[in-house]
Amino acid sequence: MAGRVVRNIARADASVIDGLARLGVATVHEAQGRTGLLGARLRPIYPGARIAGSAVTISAPPGDNWMLHVAIEQLGPGDVLVLAPTSPCEDGYFGDLLATSAMARGCRGLVIDAGVRDVRDLTEMGFPVWSRAVFAQGTIKATLGDVNVPIVCAGASIAAGDVIVADDDGVCVVRRAEAASVLEKGLAREALETGKRDRLAAGELGLDIYDMRGKLEAMGLRYE
Amino acid sequence: MAGRVVRNIARADASVIDGLARLGVATVHEAQGRTGLLGARLRPIYPGARIAGSAVTISAPPGDNWMLHVAIEQLGPGDVLVLAPTSPCEDGYFGDLLATSAMARGCRGLVIDAGVRDVRDLTEMGFPVWSRAVFAQGTIKATLGDVNVPIVCAGASIAAGDVIVADDDGVCVVRRAEAASVLEKGLAREALETGKRDRLAAGELGLDIYDMRGKLEAMGLRYE
Amino acid sequence: MAGRVVRNIARADASVIDGLARLGVATVHEAQGRTGLLGARLRPIYPGARIAGSAVTISAPPGDNWMLHVAIEQLGPGDVLVLAPTSPCEDGYFGDLLATSAMARGCRGLVIDAGVRDVRDLTEMGFPVWSRAVFAQGTIKATLGDVNVPIVCAGASIAAGDVIVADDDGVCVVRRAEAASVLEKGLAREALETGKRDRLAAGELGLDIYDMRGKLEAMGLRYE
Amino acid sequence: MAGRVVRNIARADASVIDGLARLGVATVHEAQGRTGLLGARLRPIYPGARIAGSAVTISAPPGDNWMLHVAIEQLGPGDVLVLAPTSPCEDGYFGDLLATSAMARGCRGLVIDAGVRDVRDLTEMGFPVWSRAVFAQGTIKATLGDVNVPIVCAGASIAAGDVIVADDDGVCVVRRAEAASVLEKGLAREALETGKRDRLAAGELGLDIYDMRGKLEAMGLRYE
Amino acid sequence: MAGRVVRNIARADASVIDGLARLGVATVHEAQGRTGLLGARLRPIYPGARIAGSAVTISAPPGDNWMLHVAIEQLGPGDVLVLAPTSPCEDGYFGDLLATSAMARGCRGLVIDAGVRDVRDLTEMGFPVWSRAVFAQGTIKATLGDVNVPIVCAGASIAAGDVIVADDDGVCVVRRAEAASVLEKGLAREALETGKRDRLAAGELGLDIYDMRGKLEAMGLRYE
Amino acid sequence: MAGRVVRNIARADASVIDGLARLGVATVHEAQGRTGLLGARLRPIYPGARIAGSAVTISAPPGDNWMLHVAIEQLGPGDVLVLAPTSPCEDGYFGDLLATSAMARGCRGLVIDAGVRDVRDLTEMGFPVWSRAVFAQGTIKATLGDVNVPIVCAGASIAAGDVIVADDDGVCVVRRAEAASVLEKGLAREALETGKRDRLAAGELGLDIYDMRGKLEAMGLRYE
Repeated sequence: MAGRVVRNIARADASVIDGLARLGVATVHEAQGRTGLLGARLRPIYPGARIAGSAVTISAPPGDNWMLHVAIEQLGPGDVLVLAPTSPCEDGYFGDLLATSAMARGCRGLVIDAGVRDVRDLTEMGFPVWSRAVFAQGTIKATLGDVNVPIVCAGASIAAGDVIVADDDGVCVVRRAEAASVLEKGLAREALETGKRDRLAAGELGLDIYDMRGKLEAMGLRYE
Repeated sequence: MAGRVVRNIARADASVIDGLARLGVATVHEAQGRTGLLGARLRPIYPGARIAGSAVTISAPPGDNWMLHVAIEQLGPGDVLVLAPTSPCEDGYFGDLLATSAMARGCRGLVIDAGVRDVRDLTEMGFPVWSRAVFAQGTIKATLGDVNVPIVCAGASIAAGDVIVADDDGVCVVRRAEAASVLEKGLAREALETGKRDRLAAGELGLDIYDMRGKLEAMGLRYE
Repeated sequence: MAGRVVRNIARADASVIDGLARLGVATVHEAQGRTGLLGARLRPIYPGARIAGSAVTISAPPGDNWMLHVAIEQLGPGDVLVLAPTSPCEDGYFGDLLATSAMARGCRGLVIDAGVRDVRDLTEMGFPVWSRAVFAQGTIKATLGDVNVPIVCAGASIAAGDVIVADDDGVCVVRRAEAASVLEKGLAREALETGKRDRLAAGELGLDIYDMRGKLEAMGLRYE
Repeated sequence: MAGRVVRNIARADASVIDGLARLGVATVHEAQGRTGLLGARLRPIYPGARIAGSAVTISAPPGDNWMLHVAIEQLGPGDVLVLAPTSPCEDGYFGDLLATSAMARGCRGLVIDAGVRDVRDLTEMGFPVWSRAVFAQGTIKATLGDVNVPIVCAGASIAAGDVIVADDDGVCVVRRAEAASVLEKGLAREALETGKRDRLAAGELGLDIYDMRGKLEAMGLRYE
Repeated sequence: MAGRVVRNIARADASVIDGLARLGVATVHEAQGRTGLLGARLRPIYPGARIAGSAVTISAPPGDNWMLHVAIEQLGPGDVLVLAPTSPCEDGYFGDLLATSAMARGCRGLVIDAGVRDVRDLTEMGFPVWSRAVFAQGTIKATLGDVNVPIVCAGASIAAGDVIVADDDGVCVVRRAEAASVLEKGLAREALETGKRDRLAAGELGLDIYDMRGKLEAMGLRYE
Repeated sequence: MAGRVVRNIARADASVIDGLARLGVATVHEAQGRTGLLGARLRPIYPGARIAGSAVTISAPPGDNWMLHVAIEQLGPGDVLVLAPTSPCEDGYFGDLLATSAMARGCRGLVIDAGVRDVRDLTEMGFPVWSRAVFAQGTIKATLGDVNVPIVCAGASIAAGDVIVADDDGVCVVRRAEAASVLEKGLAREALETGKRDRLAAGELGLDIYDMRGKLEAMGLRYE
């Protein structure tokens, strides 16, 4: 039965979280073996935001945003709200009042596999949201959901305290226990890419830098 | 049979219309009991526009934009064009020439459950459009439709002269006869929210402001 | 069997290509008889870009971006990469490293009926992409595809060397052999429109400018 | 505010309704000037059903099927339930228990722009449903909606007592006041088609039967 | 990194599994508190199948069905294959040869958030499949995935050995450890419904059987 | 400009066409190197049909079925009509009258990237259709299209006289000039599969039959 609120969730180290934010979604996703992406249907309401934070998860009934109020009390500085409806829904669960409240508690953004509204206000406030829809449809407060339980959001499994990374490329989740090691791998990957970027910019080809010609020929590539 | 054009439609009071524009879609939708929203598939071609106006409605065959020319003659200052195709269609019914003509007559924007094109020009002209698609596909002028008859646009029933409110959250329709009362309720709602916004910004919780804790506990919410 | 790379494709005249870019998608599409549009699902990753270039085509397996490296070697200055997956796919085939490499060879942009990532970087670099999705999902390099063979991309048939025109309205293909004649027709069309724009801006109606009233009446249009 | 139930709705003549059922959706839709179709997203749960009946309309909150119980009391023999959610929803509002109750009151079927479940039981019971989805997702009973008020269902405007015609081609609504005249036109159309069917079956061409060749040639059709 | 195959998974009791199959998806979903449904996009390839079995899970790259061969070796009698691609894909991972092999090992069916082919053969063989698409698109065998690891399939979290229930209403997952208790609750629910079905069939109303009238009136329902 | 009708198209050998029909879509698609499939959105209106025939192609404006009458005159025995609208459209271009006419000329079926209606009649007549939608929406006869020109239908490029193969798995096109060789490869593939089917049915594993274990181990597969 719904109605559980888990307090006192564990969080990853703040410096690790901030490091993951700086790497961005694509690099983090690669660094952890191409896993953890949420579905491409989640899009940012405005371009340019790049955040990471600890997930405060919400499982909410369709068209009912009551649990957002409950979840906001559980927010710590640097957290990210992550909401999955229990059945597909585009209603606008979240607007400028809830954003005001969430920001007051240090929340860095919202990831929601449903709708959001007041997007002009949210943009002006600098409160980033990744959502499935922008839709003004109002919600009710009649049924319980859960806070800080494991959820599936846009096809990805997320536990409270997992690290959410989000930018213009979408949203990625990193298991809390793996956050430090993913950061490390991501930094290594980034270092590797820097050198390559310079060579590519100078006109060298990936075919040569990555030594692909032989393998392609062996596979049967033929030039005409 | 198609081919009707209704002239001399009734319109709501201009100050009421402008008041509704200022409130915006989410507040207006709430103020009239969470009704009147058009489907979330209608999105603005550029961010930041917020308008309201009297609907000049168009029922048009798929891929045929002839009736837009007929409708433009029926426009008065402050009106909004609202087009619904008679079967689903993404073609680009409207572009910069029609926008030039509509603006010359005081039109404030277009709501269309189909496609639009020349969106860069429309953006530069400051002519806002809420559409289902951006698509350059041209249309023909071969079949009649209707102007200023009742239509269903993106799932909402709209009569000529109803007030259309549109912003970054989408599009909402207000019955002409209810416009003044909806404005009143919306202003009341807005006043109420202002105080709450300050308290939320100061860190007070919705759980306390709205006195939800008892009811949640009674429903069975449990903290772990 | 996949694995073909065609070198030395023919291209349209550079001045024709640049002329088509200036006209833009909607005008070019009209000028060639309302043909050649790619599906509306291809959207630009940022607004404002308007390009034209010769297509270097790529047929790629789902989730495999190996052929992009092969295709980049075939790029000449002013070319546009056009990728169609052999079955529907939203994975992020292309990011900032590949863009760096493509730009180094004079590539003007990418049209892809799949996903793209690193869109913030691509935006900062000014490398425009029209894609079906923004999705960080990584791809592999395991299977061959083809380069510069005829493809179907977002519903349009495209041959290597055809001219791709792309802007905020979407993407259009012009057969290489018809590029000069389409440009001519487009310029004529544009000239025609200029005069009309002024008359429409002055308040004249399309009904009168295009002499539609008689035909509409004959079709049965009736005013009430 | 929601919560209205209109009793004692007017209905069309039973023989007219049955005549419309016999004609089927495509003919009825043509007979009334190609209007009245509900969106193609509504599909029958099993093939072969062909019904017509008077609409008992339901406007229901997303994920809340309480009003179905209220509506069933308003059913008369030969009626059809028509449900539109107030925001898009695929939840399974209706199953075998509600169907048992509706059948006991003479209901001929359900049209629902949402989900249905227990479809194997419904098929065995011979209770036809046209729905947007088959989805077992349960609903709650917490919020009021309306019964027998005008609704928009799958893009069509429907009033209580309007005639619903549904078969394998989809669903069509006929205004109650126009039902007799639409039937008459439909029968005329049907009579006309019978003769043509025989001629077409004998190998005569539509080009000749409908005398299209001259018009096509005038439009510019050319054979190669 | 992908490439894990877990052997010797735990399974629920066979009689519990068969009991859940008999209850069907809608009842099981209700019995466990309206949780566990996979998305409505998964549809059976033919009507009438109703199965339950232990999940042998597969996480597979897009367009690569190699892991199906690996998974089939892990099948025990009464198992159900459950495949989730690591990025969205409609390719036809599975056809009659794989079904022959799976049936030889006692497999009861396949649940796949991707495509299937040879559906006529599968229907004749009586091998049920719930899939996102029917699509003949072939797959390759080039990249590793995982077998019997936790996956997210069509929005539901599934562990190897969980009980999959599937019928014409869709697919539901029951945690292995909760299977017995869910069966018990489902049987109780079913018993309860039987009596109600008879009363409803006799014309009694849900409004009275469930004693709703008072509550509806208190909520503000009004008859006109 | 539209309005071309090509007469006297070349066709593949009848026995080759019938051989391809017997192989079915999945085998034919594999036999020609996994190419030629039309999009999965095309579905049969009833199960069990399996046909092949020479394509008589139609490029038609949205919502205008005039060219179908023109195309029917071009049909020879064993042909298949293939219609692609020039912009996306779900209208019902085709019903029982056109099917009667097409059958009278020996047509084996219709493939249409749009809607169809009268599906109950078509089913009873045994006239198979693969379509994007079932939708009763009527079409007009006002604008020219083309017959027997190259088209793109559901993402596949099709020329008049190409062989269309269609069954419950979808639709595949085979280039006319390659039909005989594709048939040969398909028969070889089928022969190969027969032996394997028996071994798989006897419980042998694909892992062993196809000798995959070593390669999987080399790739890093690990059992736990």
